[in-house]
Amino acid sequence: MRRFLDRNFLLRSPAAEVLYHEFAAEMPIIDYHCHLPVEDIADDRRFENLTQAWLEGDHYKWRAMRMNGIEEHYCTGSAADRNKFDAWARTVPHTIMNPLYHWTHLELRRYFGIEDILDSDSSERIFGRCTELLRTPDYSCRALLERMKVRVVCTTNDPIEDLSAHTAIAEEGGGLVVVPGFRADRASQIADPGTWRTYVSALGEAANLDITSPDNLLEALQVRHDFFAECGCMVSDHGEEQLYAENYKRADIQRIFAATLRGIAPPESDVRLFKSWLLYELAKMDHAAEWTQQFHLSALRNNNSRALKVDSGYDSIGDFAIATGVANFLDRLNASGQLARTILYSVNPAHNEVLASTCGNFCEHPTPAKVQFGTAWWFMDQIDGMERQLTAFANMGLLSHFVGMLTDSRSFLSFPRHEYFRRILCNMIGTQVDRGEIPRDLDWLGKVVQNICYTNAREFFRFRDQ
Amino acid sequence: MRRFLDRNFLLRSPAAEVLYHEFAAEMPIIDYHCHLPVEDIADDRRFENLTQAWLEGDHYKWRAMRMNGIEEHYCTGSAADRNKFDAWARTVPHTIMNPLYHWTHLELRRYFGIEDILDSDSSERIFGRCTELLRTPDYSCRALLERMKVRVVCTTNDPIEDLSAHTAIAEEGGGLVVVPGFRADRASQIADPGTWRTYVSALGEAANLDITSPDNLLEALQVRHDFFAECGCMVSDHGEEQLYAENYKRADIQRIFAATLRGIAPPESDVRLFKSWLLYELAKMDHAAEWTQQFHLSALRNNNSRALKVDSGYDSIGDFAIATGVANFLDRLNASGQLARTILYSVNPAHNEVLASTCGNFCEHPTPAKVQFGTAWWFMDQIDGMERQLTAFANMGLLSHFVGMLTDSRSFLSFPRHEYFRRILCNMIGTQVDRGEIPRDLDWLGKVVQNICYTNAREFFRFRDQ
Amino acid sequence: MRRFLDRNFLLRSPAAEVLYHEFAAEMPIIDYHCHLPVEDIADDRRFENLTQAWLEGDHYKWRAMRMNGIEEHYCTGSAADRNKFDAWARTVPHTIMNPLYHWTHLELRRYFGIEDILDSDSSERIFGRCTELLRTPDYSCRALLERMKVRVVCTTNDPIEDLSAHTAIAEEGGGLVVVPGFRADRASQIADPGTWRTYVSALGEAANLDITSPDNLLEALQVRHDFFAECGCMVSDHGEEQLYAENYKRADIQRIFAATLRGIAPPESDVRLFKSWLLYELAKMDHAAEWTQQFHLSALRNNNSRALKVDSGYDSIGDFAIATGVANFLDRLNASGQLARTILYSVNPAHNEVLASTCGNFCEHPTPAKVQFGTAWWFMDQIDGMERQLTAFANMGLLSHFVGMLTDSRSFLSFPRHEYFRRILCNMIGTQVDRGEIPRDLDWLGKVVQNICYTNAREFFRFRDQ
Repeated sequence: MRRFLDRNFLLRSPAAEVLYHEFAAEMPIIDYHCHLPVEDIADDRRFENLTQAWLEGDHYKWRAMRMNGIEEHYCTGSAADRNKFDAWARTVPHTIMNPLYHWTHLELRRYFGIEDILDSDSSERIFGRCTELLRTPDYSCRALLERMKVRVVCTTNDPIEDLSAHTAIAEEGGGLVVVPGFRADRASQIADPGTWRTYVSALGEAANLDITSPDNLLEALQVRHDFFAECGCMVSDHGEEQLYAENYKRADIQRIFAATLRGIAPPESDVRLFKSWLLYELAKMDHAAEWTQQFHLSALRNNNSRALKVDSGYDSIGDFAIATGVANFLDRLNASGQLARTILYSVNPAHNEVLASTCGNFCEHPTPAKVQFGTAWWFMDQIDGMERQLTAFANMGLLSHFVGMLTDSRSFLSFPRHEYFRRILCNMIGTQVDRGEIPRDLDWLGKVVQNICYTNAREFFRFRDQ
Repeated sequence: MRRFLDRNFLLRSPAAEVLYHEFAAEMPIIDYHCHLPVEDIADDRRFENLTQAWLEGDHYKWRAMRMNGIEEHYCTGSAADRNKFDAWARTVPHTIMNPLYHWTHLELRRYFGIEDILDSDSSERIFGRCTELLRTPDYSCRALLERMKVRVVCTTNDPIEDLSAHTAIAEEGGGLVVVPGFRADRASQIADPGTWRTYVSALGEAANLDITSPDNLLEALQVRHDFFAECGCMVSDHGEEQLYAENYKRADIQRIFAATLRGIAPPESDVRLFKSWLLYELAKMDHAAEWTQQFHLSALRNNNSRALKVDSGYDSIGDFAIATGVANFLDRLNASGQLARTILYSVNPAHNEVLASTCGNFCEHPTPAKVQFGTAWWFMDQIDGMERQLTAFANMGLLSHFVGMLTDSRSFLSFPRHEYFRRILCNMIGTQVDRGEIPRDLDWLGKVVQNICYTNAREFFRFRDQ
Repeated sequence: MRRFLDRNFLLRSPAAEVLYHEFAAEMPIIDYHCHLPVEDIADDRRFENLTQAWLEGDHYKWRAMRMNGIEEHYCTGSAADRNKFDAWARTVPHTIMNPLYHWTHLELRRYFGIEDILDSDSSERIFGRCTELLRTPDYSCRALLERMKVRVVCTTNDPIEDLSAHTAIAEEGGGLVVVPGFRADRASQIADPGTWRTYVSALGEAANLDITSPDNLLEALQVRHDFFAECGCMVSDHGEEQLYAENYKRADIQRIFAATLRGIAPPESDVRLFKSWLLYELAKMDHAAEWTQQFHLSALRNNNSRALKVDSGYDSIGDFAIATGVANFLDRLNASGQLARTILYSVNPAHNEVLASTCGNFCEHPTPAKVQFGTAWWFMDQIDGMERQLTAFANMGLLSHFVGMLTDSRSFLSFPRHEYFRRILCNMIGTQVDRGEIPRDLDWLGKVVQNICYTNAREFFRFRDQ
C-alpha cells in the first residue's frame, strides 16, 4: 500500500530501489532525438504562463481533451490561456492509467515542487503558482534543461533550415550542447508534386544550387548534410511508413523526378521507387559522415482531413508489413560496407520482435549493437510500451548496449520522462535480481543501468566530451 | 493461497476488493451487443434441461469438445441431451486456463448455487440439480436476466426480421428493455451472387419495394433502418474482415450491382468497391438516426468446408492489414460531419494499439470518447485479452469513458461474464492504487468503475431511462 | 530475495514448486524436433573441448558475440578454440535478460556441476574444467543425452540423406530412439533454378529415378518418404515463410516445372503456385503414413548477403499475413479427409492468436488437439515467448493436450531448455492455483503437467514404447 508517486514510484523490489537511487537517478541526460524549438533555447525564453509552457504544441494533451469531449476552441483554438488550462485540468482526472497522468504529476513535482493532484479544484491554484515561478530566471528554458541535467539536445531540423540558433548557442559556449538532427523527409514526399516542387526550390536556394535533376537533388542534400555536420549534427532521422528497398534503375528516377517536377502526381509504385533511391542515398551520406541514422516507422499521419491544422494530434498507428523492406534496405547498404550505425523504431508494438530480431543480422565489430531497436516511441511511450520494448530488446539483443531513452518532445517540461524510463528499467532488472533470475552483482548491474541511461548514448552518438 | 473462485476471485489487492465489492458488484447490466434469441424472452422460455440452456448454440463449448477428441455426434449432432452433457463434463477438467473453466463454474455458482467442480464424477448430479431448477419459474429466461440485473438487451438482427418478438415485449411493458441491433451484413455479401439475390429479394419484400438498383437497395435498407429505430434500435453492427474505403464511382456500383443481380460473381476488387460504398451509406444512416455503429473486424469465418453446418464453431482470427482502411473510412464520414458514435473491435489482439490509437483521431465535442476501442471480443474474451484491451484503451485513450463489457452471447446463462470483466477491471485499477501509481481517491475511482460498468453505456447508447 | 538459479528458479508460488519438483522434474524427454548431428550419436563422439561442444554451430551465441562488437574471426572464423571461448565468456555478462544467460548457466550446472558465473575472470577455469570432463566417457554424446533422460530424438533430415547413422543406431539397439524427421524444403525452392536442378538430380539418384516431370518428383519424394518411414520417421517438417493454398492447375505445375528445369527463374506468383501444389502433395503423404506434419512459419532467412556463410545467424522474424493461407491449406486437406496431425509454429508472436485459434477449426475425434499451436520457437524460445505461447494456447485451446517442448537445437548441451520450459509451465499453472484461479487438485494438475512434459508427445507422435 504505497502513496502516489512516492520515492519508490514504479520500483517494486529492493534491488530495483538500489539500482534506481544509487545508479540511475543522478545520471545526466543526452536527449538524442527531440523537437524542442531551438530558438527558445537561444533566446532563453521565459514562458508567460503554464499554458504556454505545457499546452502549446502538446498534441498528447489536445487528443486527451478531445477524447474528454472538450471543444477544439480550448485545444488548438483561440481560447484564453487561463481557460485552456482549466479545460486541461478538468480532463486530468480522466487520464488515470494513461501516461499523461504520470507525466503531469511528475512534471508538477520535479519542476515546481507541487504535490497536489491537478483537477478542476486545484486548477486556479496550480496555474497561478506555476505561472509565478515560470516568470523567474530559474525557470527560463536553459534553467529548465539544467535542472534536469540535460547535457546534449539533438533537435530535429529540415535541411533547408539555416541553424542560426544552433550556431548562436554554440558560439556562446556554456555547458549545454544543442545540435541539429537532419530530417530530409520532405525531399522524398513526391506524392504531392506542388508542395514538393516548392520544397525543392527552397532546398536549392539553401544549397545555392539549381535543382533540375536527381543528381542535383543529391548534391543539394549533400551540401546541407555537410553544413549540418559542421554545426555538430551527428544524427539523421526519417519518418516513413515503411522502409523501401525496391529495385530501381537510374532511368526510373530520372523519369519520376522529371514528371514530378512538371507537377504530375506519380503512382504509388513510383513513389516507392523514388523513396527506395533517396533513402538509400541519404543513408550513404550518413555512413560517410559517421552519423547515426534513425528510422521512425509505421505512423499514420494526419488522418482527420477536416482538422484545420496538420500535425496537431490526428495521427495513429499503421500496420504495414515492414520486415522484408527493412531487411533488404539494411542489407543493400551493408553489402557495400556503407551501413551507418542505425536505430529502428516502430510505433506499432506488433513489430517489436520483427525489429529487435532484424538488428542482430547487421551487428558487427567494432560497434556494440551497431544496429539497434529504438526505445518505445510516441503512443508506446508508457509503462506497457516500454516494458515490451525492453523485453524484446533484451530477448533478441544485448540490453546492456541499448542507447536508452529520448523525449521526442516539443516541451521543455517533458524531461521527467527520462526518470520514468529509468524507474521502469531499474524495476525490470531489479525484480529479476530479487527473484533469482539475475545474479545479485549490483556493481555490474549498476554499470549496465548507467550505460543505458547515459554512457551508451555518449559513445554511440560520439558525444564524447559530454 | 486462496480457494478457487472465492469472494475475492481475480482481486489481488485491497483497493481492488473495495472497488469491486463496494462499487462494481451491484451495478445493473446493459448488454449492448448480444445474440440472445429474442423469441425465448418473448415466450419467457423455460429450458427442459441444462444441455438445452448451456450447450445448444454454444460454439465455444463445441470447439473445446472437438479439441478434446469428442465425436461431433455429441457436439452439434443428435446424441441425447444427457449424453451430450456427459461429454461436456468430461471435457471441463481439460479446460483449465481457458475462460470456459471460469465461465462454467461462475455460471454454476451464480445461477444454481452449485460450488462443485464439473467433471465426469459430478456430471449426473449437476445435470440433475440444474435441470430441476431450470424447470421452475425462477429460471425462466426473464428470471435469469432479472437475477443478473440486466436492464437492457440489444439483440442482433437482420434488416428483414419483423421484430415481432421485440414489439410484443415492448407492448407488455415491464422493467426489461429488449431492443434490436441492425446488422445488414448480408446486403453487402455479393461474393456469392445466388445467396445475395435471394437475400435482396427478401429485403425488398420486407421493405415493400422492388430492388433493381443500388438506389433501391439503399431505399429498402433505409425503410428497415427507420422501422428498427421505431422499435427502439440504437445500435448497428457490422462483421467484416476489414473496413473498406476505396474510391468508387456511381457507375461502378451500378455496374457491379447489375452484374451480381444477373448472377455473375464479382472479382475481389469489385467486392471491395461495393462494400466501400454500402458501408459508407449505412454509416450515414446511423449518423442521421443518432445511433452508435459497431464494427467487428478481423474474423475468418467458416474455415472448415467439410463441417456440415455454418456458424457452428469453425471460425478463427484473421491478420489483414486494417489500419489504413479504418482511418480512411472514418475520415470520409467525419469530413462531411456524418460520423456516428463508433465502436471498433478486432478479434486480433495484434490490432489493439492500431484501433486504440485510431479512435483519438475522430473524437470531438461533445461526446466523450465518441469513437472508441471496443471490449475484448470472442477469442480474446478472457483475462489476458481483457487486460490487453484495457491497457491499450487506457494508454491511448481515456479509460473512464469506456462503455465496457457486453456478452456477445447466445446464452441466457452467460451474464457472469460481466462479473468476470468487472473483477478484472477493478483488479487492474486497484492494483495500481496499492502500488502508488494512482492516487487513493476511491470515491473518484469508484465512480469511474461504475461508469465503465454501466453509466457510460447508458449515456453513450442513449438508454437514458434505464 | 532469492539466490540466482536456486532450486526454485522461476517458480514463484508454493503450488508451482510442488508441480515442478514432484511431477515435472523427473519426466523423460522426447525431443521431437531438433537438429542434432546424428553421426555424433552414432559415433558416440567425445568433444575435444568446450568450444567444440558449445560454440560450434550455435548461431545464438554468434549473434550475441557480434552484437557485443566481437570480430567474426572469433565467431565462425578460424580463431583458436580457446580464444573463441574467451570471446564468448567476455560476452556472457552482457547477455543478462537474454535467454542465453540462463541457458549458459543452467548448462554449466546441469552437465558440469559448475555454479560459477561465466565471464572473463572465470573463463580459463571453466574452459579447463569442462574440457577435462568432456574428454571422459561420461560426457560422450550418448552419455549427455542419457544424463538428461532423453528417450527419443527426432533429427531433421533431407529426403536425399541415406540415414545410415540412424540405421546403425537402431541396429545397435539400446534405450535411445533416434529417428529422422523428413524435411523436403529444398524440393520446393524453385526460385533459384540452378540450385534446385542440382537438388532434384540428387533426389532422383537417392530414389533411383529420373526426375523429368512433376509426377516423377512426387514419385521420388514418395520413395524417400517410404524409406524414412521404414527408418522410424514419424514427423515431417516444413520451413516456409507462409503456407500457400492457391488454386493451380495440373498444367501450371507442368509448365513451371519444365521452365525451372531449363533454368528459367519463375516469377513469385509461380513459386507460390508450385509450393501450393507440392506442400499439399507432401501433406497427403504424411497423412497416408500417419505421420505428424510440422510447419515452421515466418522466418526471414539469410538476410545479410555479405556474410560469408549461409545459416550462420543472419535470420530474423518476418511479418507476412499468414491467416488465410494457413486456413485454406488445412481446409483443402481436411475437406478430403487427408489432414494429418499437424503442429503450427510461427516465430512471429504477433501470430500467436491467429495460429492458436486456427487449430480449433480442424480438431476432431479421435485425436485430442489434432491440430495444435506449437511451442515458442527460435527467437521466442525465452520466458516472455513461452508465457505468451502458453497463454494463447490455453485461452484458445486445451493446454492439457499440448505436446510441449522441443530443443530445435544443434547442441548436445541444450537439453536444460526442457527444464526451463517445465519450470515456466509449472509456474504459470501453480501461480493460478495459489491465486484461486484453478482448484487445488494437484493430482490432476500434476498429471496435466506430466502429459505436457512427456506423455502427450509419446501419444501424439506414436512413440508408444518409449
